[in-house]
Amino acid sequence: MHRILFSLLLLLSLLQAEETLASWNDGRSKNSVITYVTSVTDPKSPDFIPAVDRIAVFDNDGTLWSEQPAYFQLFFAMDRVKSLAPQHPEWKTTQPFKAVLEDDMKALMAGGTKGLLEMVVATHTGMTDEEFDAIVIEWINRAKHPRFDRLYKDLVYQPMLELLTYLRANGFKTFIVSGGGIDFMRPFVSEVYGIPSEQIVGSMIEVAYENKQIVRRPKLVSLDDGDVKPVNIHYHIGKHPVASFGNSDGDFAMMEYTEANKKYKTLQLYVHHTDEKREWAYDRKSHIGKFDKGLDYANEHNWTVVDMKEDWKVVYPFELEK
Amino acid sequence: MHRILFSLLLLLSLLQAEETLASWNDGRSKNSVITYVTSVTDPKSPDFIPAVDRIAVFDNDGTLWSEQPAYFQLFFAMDRVKSLAPQHPEWKTTQPFKAVLEDDMKALMAGGTKGLLEMVVATHTGMTDEEFDAIVIEWINRAKHPRFDRLYKDLVYQPMLELLTYLRANGFKTFIVSGGGIDFMRPFVSEVYGIPSEQIVGSMIEVAYENKQIVRRPKLVSLDDGDVKPVNIHYHIGKHPVASFGNSDGDFAMMEYTEANKKYKTLQLYVHHTDEKREWAYDRKSHIGKFDKGLDYANEHNWTVVDMKEDWKVVYPFELEK
Repeated sequence: MHRILFSLLLLLSLLQAEETLASWNDGRSKNSVITYVTSVTDPKSPDFIPAVDRIAVFDNDGTLWSEQPAYFQLFFAMDRVKSLAPQHPEWKTTQPFKAVLEDDMKALMAGGTKGLLEMVVATHTGMTDEEFDAIVIEWINRAKHPRFDRLYKDLVYQPMLELLTYLRANGFKTFIVSGGGIDFMRPFVSEVYGIPSEQIVGSMIEVAYENKQIVRRPKLVSLDDGDVKPVNIHYHIGKHPVASFGNSDGDFAMMEYTEANKKYKTLQLYVHHTDEKREWAYDRKSHIGKFDKGLDYANEHNWTVVDMKEDWKVVYPFELEK
Repeated sequence: MHRILFSLLLLLSLLQAEETLASWNDGRSKNSVITYVTSVTDPKSPDFIPAVDRIAVFDNDGTLWSEQPAYFQLFFAMDRVKSLAPQHPEWKTTQPFKAVLEDDMKALMAGGTKGLLEMVVATHTGMTDEEFDAIVIEWINRAKHPRFDRLYKDLVYQPMLELLTYLRANGFKTFIVSGGGIDFMRPFVSEVYGIPSEQIVGSMIEVAYENKQIVRRPKLVSLDDGDVKPVNIHYHIGKHPVASFGNSDGDFAMMEYTEANKKYKTLQLYVHHTDEKREWAYDRKSHIGKFDKGLDYANEHNWTVVDMKEDWKVVYPFELEK
């Protein structure tokens, strides 16, 4: 009897998913999501998860929006270097700033993560939180991606927006757990993804309370990547996720932690960038969003690996306008 | 015309408040809350605040539940010292543990905050997050307060529970920002206050991701009191509160920060412990919940100061059972 009910429920869920997951082609990826959601939301299922524990965590760069040819926050930092340069004559001769001012991406990348973080810290601090919010909002509504000539915030993945909506319609609470800056994301991503401020977790710059204001200090206090993701999930969310979504080895710890949930059935989904025509194709050898160890593990452990080229009808929302 | 509408709205709001704020006596405190909520939720009011920005922050100890004769978490830590003592023979001769084992509260308090924090760190670490949750849940459902012979979680303030409900019914999102441990609160306060895990902010112990688990390490990384409260509001909430509720000088920075919100009308409410019969009476000279600088500032700046004895019909929910 319960089997018949479950089949009916799966059918209803498929109809709902057909509507909400409109940009997903039928296939293994879409199927695994729908089967999971249906089984954990059916109160009669042995896999049922109470709504209060339906915690879904999403990486941002490369999972919810593009990250090539470099993290979008890096473009923001580079634009900041250029506009702050008149106040920093020393930058003309100091790396990584010199590379930015000379539009020398190769030299910039040669400085590695250390140089990039130095640039982020220098350009993201020295003002109040409200001043920084205003700077981000001005930039995100003006700056355009070099390849697409579109606002960066237009380069979000339509199928992932639909997935967020589908999960929330099924009682999941959706969180972002990104290597990107928490304060870079918060001023605009709530609107883009429908995720409130306190459900956005990311890398953190030191702040202090001074003269009744929050001021930003030149120090990185948390780089939210790798093993730090589960740690920040603990502090910010305080619950063990049951579903996690990523695209790189930097998300692996978060997804492995999700899989280790002893209480509930879990879902792990990796977005594999396989579409160099509509987006980009990269994985094992990429300097950004390296996806190597995670890809092997996902294949061995029956995780869902989205083949962007095959699984997605469209990549970006603006393709629907055509 | 709008004045008439506002009066009607205030009347409706009063009827709603009459129901939801049932344990509040009529008077200045109740009035200030209702007038504030009505004015910022009326879309035609110049003071209107969009729902997304209705952020209300509450201290916990002394604001939502009692904190005498010592913070309840301290009783938890002391019980932990006693049950862990067999594994720590050295505690028999080392303060602050010796004082606990000898039930010498005077000696324990003489060690000051440093000794107390040392005891908290020693008794709250060395296990996984899930093991700690289970320890807290077992304790909170068993241990009783020495004066009332009631579970500690029964010593919450009925009028404040009503205030939380009233605010949420009016579109506010309610957060806890407490000096208490974030991991001590989370296992049980969601149920007690109706506040989800990610909306609970508090002091933090270092954790690490090891063997697919979150493990607790013997180090305090954030003492969520004073100026640290606005800092943690920034990291965890990421929005400037419009309403704040506290009871001591340790909440002052959070409330001053709320008042400094440039965009919206704000509400600051202090709970003043004036009822030694039903609860406790203490303020300027108390060793716990000292309320001195904050009391002067509140009186000078027209903040709401709840006189517990006069303003509250009942203090604890169990009084309603009589």
